[in-house]
Amino acid sequence: MQLSHDTPASSSDGFVSELAALLPAGVVSVEEADLEAARADKCGHRAQGRPICVVHAGSVEDVQATLRFANERRIPVVPRGAGSGLAGGANTGTGEISLSLARMTRILEVNAADQLAVVEPGILNADLNAQLLEHGMWWAPDPASKAISSVGGNIATNAGGLLCTKYGVTREAVLALDVVLANGELIKVGHRTVKGVTGLDLAALMIGSEGTLGVIVGATVKLRPLVPGTVWTLGAFFPDERSAASACAAVTAAHQRPAIMELVSRVAVRMLARYTGDPMEGAFVLIQTDDNDAADVAEKIEAILLEHGGKVSRTDDPARADHLVQVRRQVHFAYESFGNVLVEDVAVPRSRLADMFDACNAIAEKYDVVIPISAHAGDGNLHPTFVFDGAEPSEAVWAAADEMFTTAIELGGTLTGEHGIGILKSRWLGQELGGTQLELQRQIKAVFDPNGILNPGKVFG
Amino acid sequence: MQLSHDTPASSSDGFVSELAALLPAGVVSVEEADLEAARADKCGHRAQGRPICVVHAGSVEDVQATLRFANERRIPVVPRGAGSGLAGGANTGTGEISLSLARMTRILEVNAADQLAVVEPGILNADLNAQLLEHGMWWAPDPASKAISSVGGNIATNAGGLLCTKYGVTREAVLALDVVLANGELIKVGHRTVKGVTGLDLAALMIGSEGTLGVIVGATVKLRPLVPGTVWTLGAFFPDERSAASACAAVTAAHQRPAIMELVSRVAVRMLARYTGDPMEGAFVLIQTDDNDAADVAEKIEAILLEHGGKVSRTDDPARADHLVQVRRQVHFAYESFGNVLVEDVAVPRSRLADMFDACNAIAEKYDVVIPISAHAGDGNLHPTFVFDGAEPSEAVWAAADEMFTTAIELGGTLTGEHGIGILKSRWLGQELGGTQLELQRQIKAVFDPNGILNPGKVFG
Repeated sequence: MQLSHDTPASSSDGFVSELAALLPAGVVSVEEADLEAARADKCGHRAQGRPICVVHAGSVEDVQATLRFANERRIPVVPRGAGSGLAGGANTGTGEISLSLARMTRILEVNAADQLAVVEPGILNADLNAQLLEHGMWWAPDPASKAISSVGGNIATNAGGLLCTKYGVTREAVLALDVVLANGELIKVGHRTVKGVTGLDLAALMIGSEGTLGVIVGATVKLRPLVPGTVWTLGAFFPDERSAASACAAVTAAHQRPAIMELVSRVAVRMLARYTGDPMEGAFVLIQTDDNDAADVAEKIEAILLEHGGKVSRTDDPARADHLVQVRRQVHFAYESFGNVLVEDVAVPRSRLADMFDACNAIAEKYDVVIPISAHAGDGNLHPTFVFDGAEPSEAVWAAADEMFTTAIELGGTLTGEHGIGILKSRWLGQELGGTQLELQRQIKAVFDPNGILNPGKVFG
Repeated sequence: MQLSHDTPASSSDGFVSELAALLPAGVVSVEEADLEAARADKCGHRAQGRPICVVHAGSVEDVQATLRFANERRIPVVPRGAGSGLAGGANTGTGEISLSLARMTRILEVNAADQLAVVEPGILNADLNAQLLEHGMWWAPDPASKAISSVGGNIATNAGGLLCTKYGVTREAVLALDVVLANGELIKVGHRTVKGVTGLDLAALMIGSEGTLGVIVGATVKLRPLVPGTVWTLGAFFPDERSAASACAAVTAAHQRPAIMELVSRVAVRMLARYTGDPMEGAFVLIQTDDNDAADVAEKIEAILLEHGGKVSRTDDPARADHLVQVRRQVHFAYESFGNVLVEDVAVPRSRLADMFDACNAIAEKYDVVIPISAHAGDGNLHPTFVFDGAEPSEAVWAAADEMFTTAIELGGTLTGEHGIGILKSRWLGQELGGTQLELQRQIKAVFDPNGILNPGKVFG
């Protein structure tokens, strides 16, 4: 039976059995746990209602069949990787199908000569990197979530992370993509080669498009040889964020290129001290250097940090290094011990980092909210985090977020450095892009998805 | 007087005086020399007829006024940088306006703290880099044409060059763009920050779009600190292309990262020997290493080249190095001493480099044409060059080119690594992209340029 295109999505039971008949057994789920899980990612917000079903795609063909089916019937489809997103991009609610790629985890090829791998989208970033070790290579994208986030999700959000200043964001680490379009057709975009300029760069367009243009079902990723040498780690406490940021800026100005350069605010350090019981105070800078000149670079950086008033530790001992790294890594757990959290993701030009810290501190005071901050100081990306009581952020939190976004844009920055727009930030998108560009983006979306079934309501509102 | 939209473009005298009245004195030119120059780039092919006029834009406003005017009247506009393209992308003929950005050469900002510069599009790559020296920084895109090619043109073709394996293509060196749309509106795409994922990546979409989507009037480019240390240079002759390519592959497999790794074919070396009178024979590999470990890496690479049967020279003496570098740099002049040239630009995965050399040699024999080749062996990009008598390539040359493109695609490669599609390769575009992707690209073009005035006939045919 061919259903009318006007059949309302509420006739979902019929849809589910029809769709299930098109797919292998076990692919379509209406299990309560599956439906509940599909409502949310890690952003602390969940969709209204539950999806019609969850499709656990096991193959490209499963994705194609699902999209053909949904496109004919105008049923919204929300692609989903590992569900580790921080902007609600994969949240799926009433009347929608959650299309999970989490079972598609194969590595189809590792090619040492071409320094590339071909993978399915559901493989976790850390699992891919673990398997690349034996080939002496790695995939550089390094979101803090890499143990739990998928390669497909990293691509869909153009994930960043700690290593970006030195090793680039995800866009720089993807050569080509296999994409299933809204109508179920499979296309290959990008190149298997290092270079290629045949027409428009649709691979770059797909990267960071958050499931609004197509579903990534395969990725040809660019690998790097493992970095040789011993990693050196520096930790330094400063009187305040401005002095810490100045020290970081001086490292950049001296043309030193650490692998990692992070900054944790005083409020965040204070929360961590209470959480761990370790006495700590000040704004904390964590730096790691790598490659054959790691020791030399670490020494030069130490001198810069000392000059700027830092209390510095420098080590290549793994246990001591881990102790310093944990100051950065543990802050999120510390935040969660004080309430619910909403992680923001503004980015500013590196020269405005101190100004953005000051602005966030002023906003915290003005709205009487708690905003600890960790930042990727090497690239200007801050994660001011609202810590609040109750299930949902208060009006004050949203007002503070609004002012924070406006400030970031005024400083020449952006709403989101690496998490994406998803559902949480779509209302501010036009403010950053301007009306003309937003309209162009919407029209491009319509070229790929004329019926508007792919992740509707996300990004473009 | 508002002209009717249906006014044929042949009423060009009226258009010219109308347009000239909208722009500052001296901007609109109908000088014979200007019109003739606008017909061609460096690809060896010229447009039918001459353009209506050449607009020498001196400002963003000039570009906006020209496009508003042309869009209302449906007059085709062909954006042009320095005219150094190799695919005919800027060739302008009958009924078209040539919109030159060559006078817009200012550097508006160099920001050391943010490691970026804001420039107008007409500045030459080499001029920008010369001015960046005093800031201790450089812009990495490195097309062989950098002394005569503009930053805007590099961006419009996603230019590559010799340094790409280590330092990336142009896409990796651009943060944000100011773009005038077909209707004259100015938009800003991309981010001034290192990271940013607000909606679709229209900056990446513009890069390599060859003037079909908009006119780049400003670029925020990503700078790098100057690379320290002394450059080491290696030159090596091998019995044939296959052994030379194997040696290059072994360098990559050993995870050595030279700055430059080039391969010149036996035919090219033979032509160079006749051109210069220097006795030389074999396939030539040129390698340069840089950074603090340059000497060490050069030694390791020398051992690999020797193992693979190369006759190797290694030096850090500038004069001796230059002698080796000239083997690569002079080949094009050698070709031109034997006839007219058509430079191709296929790229293949690095593991297929030797296969592509073999295929080109077989094609040369089959069609009885002369095809010397230089290649960026570090990234798999080959420039097989047809050297022919007469003004235009023969049927045999086009048939050989056709087979070469098909072979490159079959080997997992592409029609064009760094020159673009322009006018010369548009008939093969669909073969590489497939019908569905080509149609998507055309629809995206229509979103940006609904009246089809921007570089019509180029890229998409």
